[in-house]
Amino acid sequence: MSHAIDISTDGVLTSDTHLIQSFANLNALKQEDARTVIVGAEGAHVTDSEGNRLIDGIGGLWCVNAGHKRQEIISAITEQLNTLDFYSTFYNFTHPAAAALARKLAELAPGNLNAVYLSNSGSVANDSAIRILHHYYNRLGQSSKKLILSRHGAYHGSTFLAMAMTTPAYSEGWSKAEGLVHHLRLPHYWREGEGMSEAEFLDVLLEDARTRIENLGAENIACFIAEPIQGAGGVIVAPEGYHARMSELCRRYDIKYIADEVVTSFGRLGHFFASKDVFGMQPDIITTAKGLTSGYQPLAATIISDEIHEVISEDGAMFFHGMTYSGHPAASAAALANIALMENDKIPERVRTTGKRFENNLRGLGDLELVGEVRGSHFMMGLEFVKDKEKRTPFAVTEQVGQKVAQAAQKRGLIARPLGNILILSPTLIMTEAEIDETTDILRESICEVQGSL
Amino acid sequence: MSHAIDISTDGVLTSDTHLIQSFANLNALKQEDARTVIVGAEGAHVTDSEGNRLIDGIGGLWCVNAGHKRQEIISAITEQLNTLDFYSTFYNFTHPAAAALARKLAELAPGNLNAVYLSNSGSVANDSAIRILHHYYNRLGQSSKKLILSRHGAYHGSTFLAMAMTTPAYSEGWSKAEGLVHHLRLPHYWREGEGMSEAEFLDVLLEDARTRIENLGAENIACFIAEPIQGAGGVIVAPEGYHARMSELCRRYDIKYIADEVVTSFGRLGHFFASKDVFGMQPDIITTAKGLTSGYQPLAATIISDEIHEVISEDGAMFFHGMTYSGHPAASAAALANIALMENDKIPERVRTTGKRFENNLRGLGDLELVGEVRGSHFMMGLEFVKDKEKRTPFAVTEQVGQKVAQAAQKRGLIARPLGNILILSPTLIMTEAEIDETTDILRESICEVQGSL
Repeated sequence: MSHAIDISTDGVLTSDTHLIQSFANLNALKQEDARTVIVGAEGAHVTDSEGNRLIDGIGGLWCVNAGHKRQEIISAITEQLNTLDFYSTFYNFTHPAAAALARKLAELAPGNLNAVYLSNSGSVANDSAIRILHHYYNRLGQSSKKLILSRHGAYHGSTFLAMAMTTPAYSEGWSKAEGLVHHLRLPHYWREGEGMSEAEFLDVLLEDARTRIENLGAENIACFIAEPIQGAGGVIVAPEGYHARMSELCRRYDIKYIADEVVTSFGRLGHFFASKDVFGMQPDIITTAKGLTSGYQPLAATIISDEIHEVISEDGAMFFHGMTYSGHPAASAAALANIALMENDKIPERVRTTGKRFENNLRGLGDLELVGEVRGSHFMMGLEFVKDKEKRTPFAVTEQVGQKVAQAAQKRGLIARPLGNILILSPTLIMTEAEIDETTDILRESICEVQGSL
Repeated sequence: MSHAIDISTDGVLTSDTHLIQSFANLNALKQEDARTVIVGAEGAHVTDSEGNRLIDGIGGLWCVNAGHKRQEIISAITEQLNTLDFYSTFYNFTHPAAAALARKLAELAPGNLNAVYLSNSGSVANDSAIRILHHYYNRLGQSSKKLILSRHGAYHGSTFLAMAMTTPAYSEGWSKAEGLVHHLRLPHYWREGEGMSEAEFLDVLLEDARTRIENLGAENIACFIAEPIQGAGGVIVAPEGYHARMSELCRRYDIKYIADEVVTSFGRLGHFFASKDVFGMQPDIITTAKGLTSGYQPLAATIISDEIHEVISEDGAMFFHGMTYSGHPAASAAALANIALMENDKIPERVRTTGKRFENNLRGLGDLELVGEVRGSHFMMGLEFVKDKEKRTPFAVTEQVGQKVAQAAQKRGLIARPLGNILILSPTLIMTEAEIDETTDILRESICEVQGSL
């Protein structure tokens, strides 16, 4: 490169002492060999600075849906930068790429979700959704409607407000907006539904929500925010019918439903958006990021209903909200190219077959002694390791079983993401059957290795 | 382009009905001819969809510091995408571009600011600074230190927390984090210092801060956040010596000083960072964005001191914070190329001459009847229009004098930014003397036209 960036392991690691990693044990990263330097990527693979070629089993970070090094996306970014590198969408300005993307997202999003606020991270998309809803209720004269219902196990991002909506475990020792957010029960049947059928557990969840709403007063509640499948909280799939029934409950109490589709959209579950097509419900707001550009550019969107948009754009309302890079031309062009590519290659449709193969393969690992539960859907999967399979006894966090399996897998050519006793897989969506099978084999060997060493 | 984006005015405006603009009167934008479509850019100019070539007097949005269509930056982005399109810096991962950028920022930032958290907008950089500081004090066992001192006139962004730090006027009808932020007096001598010398006014500001700290209790205060020159609050320059004395006061009370250099860094005031080089003070944290990539990519940074970094990276601390696109490869490569370009072309040094010419030219407009105050420094300027020059009587907001002048200027080939009765100029930093003089001439004509029509 013209301004040569050092890519040697030593060179990068020396510079890297100045970088603060995300969601990391920063002290542990000071130890030798603690960090992995990724220097290249192509298709379903990445390469580290030691020359190892690895299957990207986490798709960057649940985001490189179209696979790495797609020329369709890269050339769209370059062309856009050579046409219009940057202009904002503040005040009365707009530009072709942001406008075209907003229109395309309105077309893809279900029902009456037709107005789009663009930002640059899922955290901000969720933060913006709340700010917009609070303003909406202020405009309607219902300024008491401010509280947010979320859930244990949720991950909604890492701004001060987004962290308050995230499961409380993620802000231990940290701060968050206090008083605004109330967390409903973890919708995890395998862990929480002992002695009940799944249908009974669903009734318990709904009753928990209803009671909480009655106690807080619907007149004080702005919204319920939920991921269709909880992601960073451990890939937790709520019981069948949960979202449709929660949505019905919310509508009854005039509580808006925000579907956080930062992970579940753009093909990961076999559709552009999962809310309607997979879970049969119509949210009032959908937030998305990650797969929106397949990670090639930082971009997120808050897609709101016509009804909300009408209130916030009526005479006398001022939209006091904005990020400089809202609708960044290069990011918008990347998203348009990514969507076109997904449509041309029929990626969501393909995932319904290949993602199912991935899911079924991984479910097959459930026969291993160490594996308590295999959960998730298509290319969004989690394996939970247990000390005692029958009793579902969790390992102590200090045993770092997830991390041990991840290390064993990386040694064998696969990147997977440890999360306590859980291992998360969220690969690119373009994996071949052979790559899917190879991933499964590596996982089996790695789990067996760790099982044998405990 | 491969996935043709419609660039006709009608085509863009039709799609654009789905886009929510930032900081806009959304209802007014529904009217015909209300929106301007920017389709191209080069150097100090942009082009609209009607074919008009306009001087970009706001530099995108205080950000296109290196000018538009710089091949050095564009090719660095393309090359990076072709090498490594995306990998995260979560957990134990890093990559060459993010590491190199962190090291470069540590080198450019003053004193012991050597550890860098990367994000994608100034709002998030500020939001992250507070989250990191709260965590820092928790680690030190001083968990009561949570409050934030900000100022009237401040602009610190548009997340839920960043908006709470922003001047209260910007959240009218909106929501923000309550109870955390206390706003000190507006440090604007011309408006607030009646009957005092500037030095006396400075004493009043310091006394206001001291009293507020004593009343709240320093043991409850985490930090003071301040822009070296207030930007979106109206380009307000605090009295000479203000920042050094505020910094001294903060140190005395063990209150951290966050310098929000989202606008003032990367050459806008003639230096890479303004805190030390222009205002002679050493912050504990600097946040930056905008000029960091000259707007070519969404990127921001929170640069923290060794002392804070040591506490948050000691044994037992977990860094529970992160944005997927923290250290995005393409954005990091853009910043590195942008900084290299600024060093090669000596842009900051050049600004000390050309920016001074711009500032002096604009100060010359102070002779006009409509112009109450010309303020700012170098390429960061504001003109405040008044009804009565001697009495400094403001216009009613409904008279939209700033907007009228901006419209008159756009007709003549210059984009400027209206803000109530203020007009903001924050152009690219590569303007020639001829372009600077042309800008001044257009402003004079435009102000005279509006003056004549009132």
